[in-house]
Amino acid sequence: MHRVFNFSSGPSALPLPVLEKAQKELCNYQQTGISVMEMSHRSSAYQEIMDETTSLLKELMEIPYNYQILFLPGGASLQFSMVPLNLLRKSKKADYIHTGSWSKKAIAEAKKYGEIRIAASSDEQQFREVPVLNKMVFDDEADYVHITVNNTIEGTCFHQIPHTGNVPLVADMSSNILSTYCDVSAFGIIYAGAQKNLGTAGVTIVLVREDLIGNAASDCPTMLDYQTHSKHRSLYNTPPSFSIYITKLVLEWLKEMGGVSAIESLNREKARLLYTFLDESKLFTSNVARNSRSLMNIPFTTDSDDLNQKFIEEAKAAGLVTLGGHRSVGGMRASIYNAMPLEGVQELVAFMSNFEMNNR
Amino acid sequence: MHRVFNFSSGPSALPLPVLEKAQKELCNYQQTGISVMEMSHRSSAYQEIMDETTSLLKELMEIPYNYQILFLPGGASLQFSMVPLNLLRKSKKADYIHTGSWSKKAIAEAKKYGEIRIAASSDEQQFREVPVLNKMVFDDEADYVHITVNNTIEGTCFHQIPHTGNVPLVADMSSNILSTYCDVSAFGIIYAGAQKNLGTAGVTIVLVREDLIGNAASDCPTMLDYQTHSKHRSLYNTPPSFSIYITKLVLEWLKEMGGVSAIESLNREKARLLYTFLDESKLFTSNVARNSRSLMNIPFTTDSDDLNQKFIEEAKAAGLVTLGGHRSVGGMRASIYNAMPLEGVQELVAFMSNFEMNNR
Repeated sequence: MHRVFNFSSGPSALPLPVLEKAQKELCNYQQTGISVMEMSHRSSAYQEIMDETTSLLKELMEIPYNYQILFLPGGASLQFSMVPLNLLRKSKKADYIHTGSWSKKAIAEAKKYGEIRIAASSDEQQFREVPVLNKMVFDDEADYVHITVNNTIEGTCFHQIPHTGNVPLVADMSSNILSTYCDVSAFGIIYAGAQKNLGTAGVTIVLVREDLIGNAASDCPTMLDYQTHSKHRSLYNTPPSFSIYITKLVLEWLKEMGGVSAIESLNREKARLLYTFLDESKLFTSNVARNSRSLMNIPFTTDSDDLNQKFIEEAKAAGLVTLGGHRSVGGMRASIYNAMPLEGVQELVAFMSNFEMNNR
Repeated sequence: MHRVFNFSSGPSALPLPVLEKAQKELCNYQQTGISVMEMSHRSSAYQEIMDETTSLLKELMEIPYNYQILFLPGGASLQFSMVPLNLLRKSKKADYIHTGSWSKKAIAEAKKYGEIRIAASSDEQQFREVPVLNKMVFDDEADYVHITVNNTIEGTCFHQIPHTGNVPLVADMSSNILSTYCDVSAFGIIYAGAQKNLGTAGVTIVLVREDLIGNAASDCPTMLDYQTHSKHRSLYNTPPSFSIYITKLVLEWLKEMGGVSAIESLNREKARLLYTFLDESKLFTSNVARNSRSLMNIPFTTDSDDLNQKFIEEAKAAGLVTLGGHRSVGGMRASIYNAMPLEGVQELVAFMSNFEMNNR
């Protein structure tokens, strides 16, 4: 079987052992005689899958007891609505940190429901860095502060999490969850679409501190109320059951790899390799400020659109696929999530190095 | 490999050829070197999957040109909110037909957003039949009429679709879509979770007549506005991509089986077999009125809870699984969707017949 290295920003590469296990039990899950895809979500076999997924996530992220772990549909985009609908309950004010395309969408959505302040922004820096938040003063009265920790399109990341005092911090971690250590207790809510570091598309993981549940307005759609899902342990209706099962396999794989600390070392090594090459290259450049560089999404470019195109095509032919940059920014982007092995980045760097020699 | 006959009401049995094809290409889809689960939803390979799924559905259901086919997250339960949020725009009134547990949820949700009238109900008949709608007069001013065509829990079904004149008819067809011929043009909206006749959980198919799109209020969550998904051809954000792919495989299988007319004959034969046995049985009874019997979900019972339990357990041991009735009604239920082969029903009837001989 000919597999390639897949640098897609999401849905993105899955660990091969995960795919192989899913493949093996696809028609008959653990002697049940049926596929996970055919399993009633009310069956004990499926409940076990949900329970194991929950407990693995709890263990790997060291999630404190006072957080609910929810498996929801609709992606981060639905969380852009669910967060304000559930949290804008007292002052109806919230502070948002604006760092790119995704925070922009989150802000636009929240503005439908309350008074939203852009508390910090790197708009003037074309989002090539994230704002410094150390000494920031947030609005004490805000119902929450929202941050996009890793910016998939811009290739930036907050390496320090701001202190927001008593105001709950809500974080979109779609593209960096489980990639490095994270102190969950610093957050009120963490949400992440599964299709980057957690599995495949269809399910979104939401960690919610329990005191933030139960405050939605009475006209909030039932499916958008965290309480609905918390009360029914993510089984209010049929969940995206196969996607949750894939998340279970990914978490099992991650645990076997040594958990978050082990994958963090590997991620740092992968990113170091690529950034070191970029910093020394005379052909390729990274536009992202050094202190804001993402470990997960690394955009780079040459000074010619034609050369970029040539690079993307030749890389593809060499088995290094989906290296095109986001349509809004062009150039190239390598997304090197947890599932990208070191060899993938080594091959990419070797290919880039060769390409540079041949195209200078 | 030991497969069993799975009578689950959903997620439910998938055709074995579908599972086998998914299994075969799980690690490497059509020589792309990656899994469908790893595929960028913006890639041409994935766009092809979406296009094929759409065109197969269009062909199999003979969907007129003025309908949009949307692939949405959240199940029918999210449609319970999306329908009123998008359609209650003029009089803010709607007529609902109340036929059981699911219509009850749809009604409760709609009441958050407008003046909802129960235009007909079989509540007094304990939902053992569906109301006669032939001569019904609907409210001319209503923004829409809502009907649950097949009632998964109660085992009832409308065999005739009411004429609602100029008022759009909205139908929950989660448990009967593609099981029998359906004149799509009689409906304003048809929605169905995939996990019964269309694939696996995670995606909901929504057919919307185009004139009903674009009327949501400005504070409608973006993800709950049909226009968002119509405009972006179900790619506003990352869709439940693997579930859509499974739907494609199911539709390919259905086409190969001879399409809707062929599967309708098979479904009628399967249901006839089971109902004929039930009508003649001295141990098992069906509580559903004859004129309202579902072809998909067939609840039945003995007069003893202990005997029911014994039946469910012995059937399971014999490879006939998930025959327990819904927790709200008890007894037994056989869900015999498109993917249940004739042999499955034949085996069930033979088993029931034997059980009756041994337990009279």
